[in-house]
Amino acid sequence: MTTFRTTRRVEFGDTDMAGIVHFSNFFRYMEAAECDFLRARGLAVVMEFEGQKIGFPRVSATCDYLKPARFQDVLDVTVSIERIGTKSVTYLFEFARAGEILAQGKVTSVCCRTGTDTPMEGIEIPAGYRARLQS
Amino acid sequence: MTTFRTTRRVEFGDTDMAGIVHFSNFFRYMEAAECDFLRARGLAVVMEFEGQKIGFPRVSATCDYLKPARFQDVLDVTVSIERIGTKSVTYLFEFARAGEILAQGKVTSVCCRTGTDTPMEGIEIPAGYRARLQS
Amino acid sequence: MTTFRTTRRVEFGDTDMAGIVHFSNFFRYMEAAECDFLRARGLAVVMEFEGQKIGFPRVSATCDYLKPARFQDVLDVTVSIERIGTKSVTYLFEFARAGEILAQGKVTSVCCRTGTDTPMEGIEIPAGYRARLQS
Amino acid sequence: MTTFRTTRRVEFGDTDMAGIVHFSNFFRYMEAAECDFLRARGLAVVMEFEGQKIGFPRVSATCDYLKPARFQDVLDVTVSIERIGTKSVTYLFEFARAGEILAQGKVTSVCCRTGTDTPMEGIEIPAGYRARLQS
Repeated sequence: MTTFRTTRRVEFGDTDMAGIVHFSNFFRYMEAAECDFLRARGLAVVMEFEGQKIGFPRVSATCDYLKPARFQDVLDVTVSIERIGTKSVTYLFEFARAGEILAQGKVTSVCCRTGTDTPMEGIEIPAGYRARLQS
Repeated sequence: MTTFRTTRRVEFGDTDMAGIVHFSNFFRYMEAAECDFLRARGLAVVMEFEGQKIGFPRVSATCDYLKPARFQDVLDVTVSIERIGTKSVTYLFEFARAGEILAQGKVTSVCCRTGTDTPMEGIEIPAGYRARLQS
Repeated sequence: MTTFRTTRRVEFGDTDMAGIVHFSNFFRYMEAAECDFLRARGLAVVMEFEGQKIGFPRVSATCDYLKPARFQDVLDVTVSIERIGTKSVTYLFEFARAGEILAQGKVTSVCCRTGTDTPMEGIEIPAGYRARLQS
Repeated sequence: MTTFRTTRRVEFGDTDMAGIVHFSNFFRYMEAAECDFLRARGLAVVMEFEGQKIGFPRVSATCDYLKPARFQDVLDVTVSIERIGTKSVTYLFEFARAGEILAQGKVTSVCCRTGTDTPMEGIEIPAGYRARLQS
């Protein structure tokens, strides 16, 4: 399983009065990078897959902040899969600027059948989706 | 039609690196104040009303910024209805701190039938909803 | 004065429970497009220009929403300058998907001397900054 | 050290297209609850304390999501201190709705001397600040 790389430019609205990226935005950055990773495999966090509507709500998210990121910084974002379980996927993320690591995160999502009138229900990751995740 | 008043405390994450509330957040503040206004009338921006799912997507939003708002400020927010049309509502908002006006905004929303598989379609505001809006 | 073009992909976190981009996010999109426009001219919304710290806080922002934008949409964003005044700049924005206009916005910013201990004070846009804006 | 309680109403703009609170917003909720906790003690995450400008940037943040929160939910938020170190504070958060726990989080912040031209530097939490934290 290879590592996926993308980039992210820090926007003005991502900063807070401390002059740095607000810590909550790294979770948005992670999700966007995960979506880039999935798109490169023909997948998405919410999609109709083989006739079934599925989604991957998060069950856990964590981030360690080593150095602040600032307006206009272009962050190198690395996405890798730590583990694919029966129903869940755990992603690892790394944010770097010019080779220096700024933050490291981890997100676990659970595959759910989605629909409008039923509560979300965890299901096994479809074999086809899993195969593409591992590609 | 009376004026509705609520308050809003500026949070750390609402600020940007200029040390003031990011301008986009006033639109969130307006929506939250509109929801407070509606809740006081037993209404909501998305709800099932008399057996029909309706929502009020925005078709126009504007804000004039007179003075910056800062972390921990408690803003006095005024909501009033400028106009109720057949299908739309236009709200006016005013944000003040200690009697000084900081910002003024206007939002127009259109009543739509909502559902999961159909595109949003503008409909007349139900008479009962309208009556409560005007109360 | 030519028109500047950039693109923006709608992220999952930009959507709301109505399944569309939350209206407030178009203001973030506008600011990011403005920053792209400025960057292409060697400028920024906050910067040290010829030894002076300046910034461009917004005094007015407006958006008209014609059609909803959705997750994964790639928006074509057009930035143009409507007017450069002595102290202010007014930008026009257009968001389109596959040739169809989804939203149109306008933002007016005022040039301010920024510093940490003084309140923001409006100043004339430096001649060099203005020249690059018009290029 | 007692537990601090506050509440938070879920806003429309906090939701995503899955119809639930976007996971990143729980980190904003945590910060706001921390600020409420601090305010009740005469403290803040950024403040001038005994003549010194200090702030508490986050070095770690984590959240586990057990059940989704939805628009209009009023969340009961519990804040407690897990540990006060020499330079850092670790907070625990719990979000519940009608007695059912929806999410649990943890945030560690480090006390820093803040100023405009110097990089943030970790310092010991001032004794007076620590005393109020423990009150």
